[in-house]
Amino acid sequence: MTEWTEAPKLSAQDFEAAIRAVGAERYHDKHPFHKMLHGGKLNKGQVAAWALNRYCYQEAVPRKDAALIARAESRELRREWVHRILDHDGLADEPGGIERWLVLTDGLGLDRDYVVSKRGALPATRFAVEAYVRFVAIEPLTVAVASSLTELFAPKIHRERISGMLENYDFIGEEVMAYFRRRLVQAPDDAAFALDYIKQHARTRTEQEACVDAVRFKCNVLWAQLDALHHAYVEPGNIPPGAFRP
Amino acid sequence: MTEWTEAPKLSAQDFEAAIRAVGAERYHDKHPFHKMLHGGKLNKGQVAAWALNRYCYQEAVPRKDAALIARAESRELRREWVHRILDHDGLADEPGGIERWLVLTDGLGLDRDYVVSKRGALPATRFAVEAYVRFVAIEPLTVAVASSLTELFAPKIHRERISGMLENYDFIGEEVMAYFRRRLVQAPDDAAFALDYIKQHARTRTEQEACVDAVRFKCNVLWAQLDALHHAYVEPGNIPPGAFRP
Repeated sequence: MTEWTEAPKLSAQDFEAAIRAVGAERYHDKHPFHKMLHGGKLNKGQVAAWALNRYCYQEAVPRKDAALIARAESRELRREWVHRILDHDGLADEPGGIERWLVLTDGLGLDRDYVVSKRGALPATRFAVEAYVRFVAIEPLTVAVASSLTELFAPKIHRERISGMLENYDFIGEEVMAYFRRRLVQAPDDAAFALDYIKQHARTRTEQEACVDAVRFKCNVLWAQLDALHHAYVEPGNIPPGAFRP
Repeated sequence: MTEWTEAPKLSAQDFEAAIRAVGAERYHDKHPFHKMLHGGKLNKGQVAAWALNRYCYQEAVPRKDAALIARAESRELRREWVHRILDHDGLADEPGGIERWLVLTDGLGLDRDYVVSKRGALPATRFAVEAYVRFVAIEPLTVAVASSLTELFAPKIHRERISGMLENYDFIGEEVMAYFRRRLVQAPDDAAFALDYIKQHARTRTEQEACVDAVRFKCNVLWAQLDALHHAYVEPGNIPPGAFRP
């Protein structure tokens, strides 16, 4: 019987490269629905379906960040992470990212109460985003931090989205793109912190691999949402019972 | 077989009175250890034991508040509740309540790393405070909100603590009482919000009673901490293995 041996730890550089490779392989900028969205290939109803479903993800983000803080006994980590809740929910006069998202859904002609109720969202959307909240609540803290690292890949997609959507859709104006403009600034700071954190706290190769897997998991959460939209709203006849009908 | 019938709902006034009655019966201002603390009957080592153990409670508070936010799908509730995390952990230049607590433990001659490590805290302290975090994470949201309502009773105890401790201990100065002075302002606002919230959201007598029970539970969390301190640090010979020895 051979004794189990832990593989050697990756250097910080190789660890980061392994994480970035996940983005290159499976970040949702490679999804066909995304290419259609940015390329102006969708009609207003399809864009509305995307925005309505993506609201569920936006709304879940501060909850998953709170789930992380609820587990962090380090005040330094909590003080850093709480910015993410404030970025999404706002604070006092600052309305926050979810409010900016609702400006987008308003602009697409969706009723705000209907969007917020999530009644019209695809069940697969909600299963995916709630799986993310649960992942952050129960996985080891370092792995939970790692799952945020799709933010490394976000600025590129946000830039493409702003230019692609403004250019291709006459029903999309500058004001409804405010959410993405703000994320261009926020996401890189957050990602830099999280990347540093996991480099410091993943102490074994096994933990490093769990972190890389967490980024894969998170890419799956994003990809599954687009699969569900693609299936329901691109070919006719596939909208599940109870889901939004453009 | 008699059919089960729900008892009539309490009026908002009676509901509030039932909650306040819990404080009158069992808030920890009635605990003998508390009377000793405020009355100048403890020595510096005993006050240090209190501050060291109470640190565990302070540190758990933003985690339990994050646990609540992690479950709240209402952005309004999250935006209101996040203040509590910021009050304790601070934000940017504002150091927050836990830092002010550490000024108190510094003033009592305790090593900061030792306090933060919680290694010297009584196991009963940690069991009690983690039971509170867990309660907020798993009980119905309205009941979780209700468990914060010991804040209704806090200003009185904080005022007594400030005057009693400043008067009775030459090792306690104005600067280390900053935590309690700040809470005199914060706690009443928070309690007013939570009381309004449960009046609106507890829709049946059963839910109202669960809220009253939540306040009892929270009083037990506070009382158990003082019982443990009382047992360990008032009579000699009772300090458990591994716990702080003055």
